Amino acid sequence: MSMENGKNAPVGVFDSGVGGLTVAREISRQLPNENIIYFGDTARVPYGSKSQNTIIRFSEQIIRFLKTKQVKAIVIACNTASALALDAVRDEFDIPILGVVIPGARAAVEATGNKKVGVVGTDATVQSGMYTKIIQGMAPDITVIEKACPLFVPLVEEGFKEHQVTREVIEYYLEPMRSTDIDTMILGCTHYPLLRSKIREYMGDKIQIVNPAYETAMDLKKLLHERDMENDGKTVQHSRYAFYVSDAAEKFRKFANTVMPFDVPTTNVVNIEEY
Amino acid sequence: MSMENGKNAPVGVFDSGVGGLTVAREISRQLPNENIIYFGDTARVPYGSKSQNTIIRFSEQIIRFLKTKQVKAIVIACNTASALALDAVRDEFDIPILGVVIPGARAAVEATGNKKVGVVGTDATVQSGMYTKIIQGMAPDITVIEKACPLFVPLVEEGFKEHQVTREVIEYYLEPMRSTDIDTMILGCTHYPLLRSKIREYMGDKIQIVNPAYETAMDLKKLLHERDMENDGKTVQHSRYAFYVSDAAEKFRKFANTVMPFDVPTTNVVNIEEY
Repeated sequence: MSMENGKNAPVGVFDSGVGGLTVAREISRQLPNENIIYFGDTARVPYGSKSQNTIIRFSEQIIRFLKTKQVKAIVIACNTASALALDAVRDEFDIPILGVVIPGARAAVEATGNKKVGVVGTDATVQSGMYTKIIQGMAPDITVIEKACPLFVPLVEEGFKEHQVTREVIEYYLEPMRSTDIDTMILGCTHYPLLRSKIREYMGDKIQIVNPAYETAMDLKKLLHERDMENDGKTVQHSRYAFYVSDAAEKFRKFANTVMPFDVPTTNVVNIEEY
Repeated sequence: MSMENGKNAPVGVFDSGVGGLTVAREISRQLPNENIIYFGDTARVPYGSKSQNTIIRFSEQIIRFLKTKQVKAIVIACNTASALALDAVRDEFDIPILGVVIPGARAAVEATGNKKVGVVGTDATVQSGMYTKIIQGMAPDITVIEKACPLFVPLVEEGFKEHQVTREVIEYYLEPMRSTDIDTMILGCTHYPLLRSKIREYMGDKIQIVNPAYETAMDLKKLLHERDMENDGKTVQHSRYAFYVSDAAEKFRKFANTVMPFDVPTTNVVNIEEY
């Protein structure tokens, strides 16, 4: 750990776009003293339909960028990048890196009573089988059913949350899952919590819905505490949070202001391909 | 014009992903002697929600790549890149470059009887207003109604063409257009011809539907003829068509085999950010 990345250094959080803001929001709530540098890869969003090699390369570029901001730890607030790139970047970089898949998996293992867990996510996340591997690594007797729901992200981004079409797409994807007896479902994509009430409506009240953002913030808190890296809050910061994107800063800023519980005054554009 | 980019050199065709294959198919049909180098930017698809600066930068990288393949002319087979980047790259590169917007606009100007034209496309294409500018540049008395339909691309890519949801999304986007008296509609995104029959069903038989791919291939033929750059077909080629992508080659290859009227045996991955 170098001098500049000390206790009062910021935490880096990144996502393919806006979805990870739900994770940043949870970190800001549970760790109010921490400064956050958020990066959204809006020039190359979405990641969910892309290959592992590409997602690793994109993640490496973003981590190199975040390191120029002297972050003390990094949270991959994107299920696809967590599932496909976490192992590779942990081996490569000398900085603590957390993903959302392990915390989400652990929460589901703790929540399930009948040992049957469903996972919804992007094509890439589901094809990686990472949630199943990690859950069964923790508890081999748990049955995991994974289902890709690739239209959920565009439906959220296009503001179709309340439209009839969204209910039908939810039914189309989740009907096979509802007909099983899973008692716990992981929302394995950071966009999906924005459809939570509609998913709940379709899946019924008996199921427990896990949003990995909450557990991820808990894990970050634990990691910073164990390594004595918690921000003591004594350094006065002009602004606690900074937002960077690879494209379309103004569109991002407007969206961020609808998600975050504080004002997001500016967003900066970074040419991420140069990192 | 350098020596290596002579008559028998290939034509470069690019798109954000698979949509431009419908344009490449039309070129292969109308110009059977031409060799084609196709590039699909599958690592950064879609373009339709991104900013002009980013779309210009991506287009420049792809043109630099295609120039390493000694192409004699380039077709931007993507409405978004044609609308936002054509002027910039034409100024920058010493090679003939065609887009799909001008040919599509001309076809609509020729087709309309009542001087009322509708255009459907991505967010970026519609926000650019390029179809309206070009149509009214050709015929100032034509009224143009543009409408962004951002969910059409993911619906096509997720194979929802025959699903009830697609009919409802078409109704959602096109109801305001159907209630006007336009007599001509431009499918201003290369994915949309794949929904043509559903759009036709909703809009009715009286409307003329313009697919810019046909006119673009005609324009390319004219350009090559005027400049005496037509391939004489005398050079024996091992393979007339070559396909490159920035990600997920196998997925692209499978899709290409469903669109192209010939076998696509291989697709090569290019790290486009290096160009």
